[in-house]
Amino acid sequence: MAKSPETEHPVGAFGWAARDTSGTLSPFKFSRRATGEKDVQFKVLYCGICHSDLHMIKNEWGFTVYPIVPGHEIVGEVTEVGSKVTKVKVGDKVGVGCLVGSCGSCDMCSKDLEQYCPKQILTYGAKYHDGTITYGGYSNLMVAEEHFIVRWPENFPLDKGAPLLCAGITTYSPLRYFGLDKPGMHVGVVGLGGLGHVAVKFAKAFGAKVTVISTSESKKKEALEKLGADTFLISKDPEAMQAAVGTLDGIIDTVSAVHPVIPLIGLLKAHGKMIMVGAPEKPLEVATFPLIMGRKTLSGSAIGGLKETQEMIDFAAKHNILADVEVINMDYVNTAMERLVKADVKYRFVIDMSSLKTA
Amino acid sequence: MAKSPETEHPVGAFGWAARDTSGTLSPFKFSRRATGEKDVQFKVLYCGICHSDLHMIKNEWGFTVYPIVPGHEIVGEVTEVGSKVTKVKVGDKVGVGCLVGSCGSCDMCSKDLEQYCPKQILTYGAKYHDGTITYGGYSNLMVAEEHFIVRWPENFPLDKGAPLLCAGITTYSPLRYFGLDKPGMHVGVVGLGGLGHVAVKFAKAFGAKVTVISTSESKKKEALEKLGADTFLISKDPEAMQAAVGTLDGIIDTVSAVHPVIPLIGLLKAHGKMIMVGAPEKPLEVATFPLIMGRKTLSGSAIGGLKETQEMIDFAAKHNILADVEVINMDYVNTAMERLVKADVKYRFVIDMSSLKTA
Repeated sequence: MAKSPETEHPVGAFGWAARDTSGTLSPFKFSRRATGEKDVQFKVLYCGICHSDLHMIKNEWGFTVYPIVPGHEIVGEVTEVGSKVTKVKVGDKVGVGCLVGSCGSCDMCSKDLEQYCPKQILTYGAKYHDGTITYGGYSNLMVAEEHFIVRWPENFPLDKGAPLLCAGITTYSPLRYFGLDKPGMHVGVVGLGGLGHVAVKFAKAFGAKVTVISTSESKKKEALEKLGADTFLISKDPEAMQAAVGTLDGIIDTVSAVHPVIPLIGLLKAHGKMIMVGAPEKPLEVATFPLIMGRKTLSGSAIGGLKETQEMIDFAAKHNILADVEVINMDYVNTAMERLVKADVKYRFVIDMSSLKTA
Repeated sequence: MAKSPETEHPVGAFGWAARDTSGTLSPFKFSRRATGEKDVQFKVLYCGICHSDLHMIKNEWGFTVYPIVPGHEIVGEVTEVGSKVTKVKVGDKVGVGCLVGSCGSCDMCSKDLEQYCPKQILTYGAKYHDGTITYGGYSNLMVAEEHFIVRWPENFPLDKGAPLLCAGITTYSPLRYFGLDKPGMHVGVVGLGGLGHVAVKFAKAFGAKVTVISTSESKKKEALEKLGADTFLISKDPEAMQAAVGTLDGIIDTVSAVHPVIPLIGLLKAHGKMIMVGAPEKPLEVATFPLIMGRKTLSGSAIGGLKETQEMIDFAAKHNILADVEVINMDYVNTAMERLVKADVKYRFVIDMSSLKTA
């Protein structure tokens, strides 16, 4: 007989879980495995709320296993390390992002691209090597293999840094991979939410000119004055869109709702690259002529590997790139989720885990 | 008052033109410009029939100017050269493909990518520098700037070689640009028509493993035995498609009708590249998850620049790559168009221009 989440492992843990497709989160007792020789155990201090958490707690992608403890933008302080761990020691600050496992031996893993390993193990809601279900960072305690632990840069803020473990790497990785990380590049960022606002910051730090593309005039002032974008383009303004045709080297599209991409492809120069990092639940309409006339590219990109995630965090610390966050207590999380549906946050909720009351 | 096509230039010419959206072709008297100092005049010997010709004579892309003389797979023998021409001499065999002009000074032109010059001039149905409309190769005589002339390799067949000037370069260029031109690559070719059958030949010549993907079992024997493909996949066979998931480095999709591309993207390995060279008249449905999970790319590609076209034809001559053609007489052209609609040709019609009866 399968053991209950509370007794399947020896270490008591506590967090908030959703039990059904209502997505309502409430206190949940479970357990974590004993710290193995290559494991790092840490006390969770902050955990960002990613839009994926919202999709998952409501089973909007169709593969949720309940109860589910979300959270994959996790930072904390090491409380125990296994005998073979060399990366960190007790007391160090660390992070865990979207992945806690992969096969370690495939072509992708051998190239530090664990995010494309067919056997990758997500930080929550996935089956771990031992057959138990993974639980995420809306909890007091985490255990993860050293390989999936990110060393936190000294004096780098934990709360504002946490979202970089998903939102940061998701935008940093395609900027680098698709060659948009060079001075003189003109990069468009579509959507100014959790992902978009850090995409602007990374692109600016790389020396690119940045145009924010949004449906809403309301974000213009903040995009230009606070986030440092160079120009702002309203995608619903046909004249402004026409004037911008053929001006961009690349576009990071962070919008996870179905939206028109054909006009966005029109903004690209010849050989321009449009990269989707949001995942609309329905297919998009893509015309082939605009791709053909200019050898343009529509691609997708998923988070980043562990090596690149460490590189991203170190780069962010060096260039003082942080997310703009609203820190909340654990018992505000359901309200936060409701506000997230309405995009009513600038730009990321982060849970202060010291507010977690153990039952 | 604008002069008539027959009198606007000094050199009498003769061909077949469509006059309206019926697309019916019939004899047509027009004229060619005098051979300028950088021009090459040649007698047309063969002209391939491209599917684009069919779209254009019926105005299916909406920008046809009637009367239209189609044809952009043109080979012939030089009859006159301008005083500054150095590339060819009278009596040489030459070819002209899809382009007869470009601006010559933009970023694309300076990189030998005339096919992406915003001011490119198509071989037929476009406005030339002097304001007159260009007429294509379904005619007795051509004049073109030296820059847009392809030197024909010695002893390379004219009839079977003509289609390479469009179908050949359209598939050769993306195989090269997207890195699918290496031994060990596994390349899928979707659609086995004029473009697809030469894509198979080029990919094989590059040393790739080639899988032909088709809706029709009827093409299997020929693909494997005659064209040299390694495997054949029926896109309507769910089991076979499932077994091929994640096996291809790249796909050249030559189909110009609307068709499902999501299952094709599924055939790609991580970082696989799907390149559209056909242009369906309606947008395609593209899901973003399959692009994201594997950093896959959907791109388009248009013909090739003049430098690359010369390289392609020289490569074809070296490796004995020719189109499979059905040579027809000019007065069969309307029947050929009807058969082309039904894909009833293996794989390209080529008009023997010696059959052209001057009125």
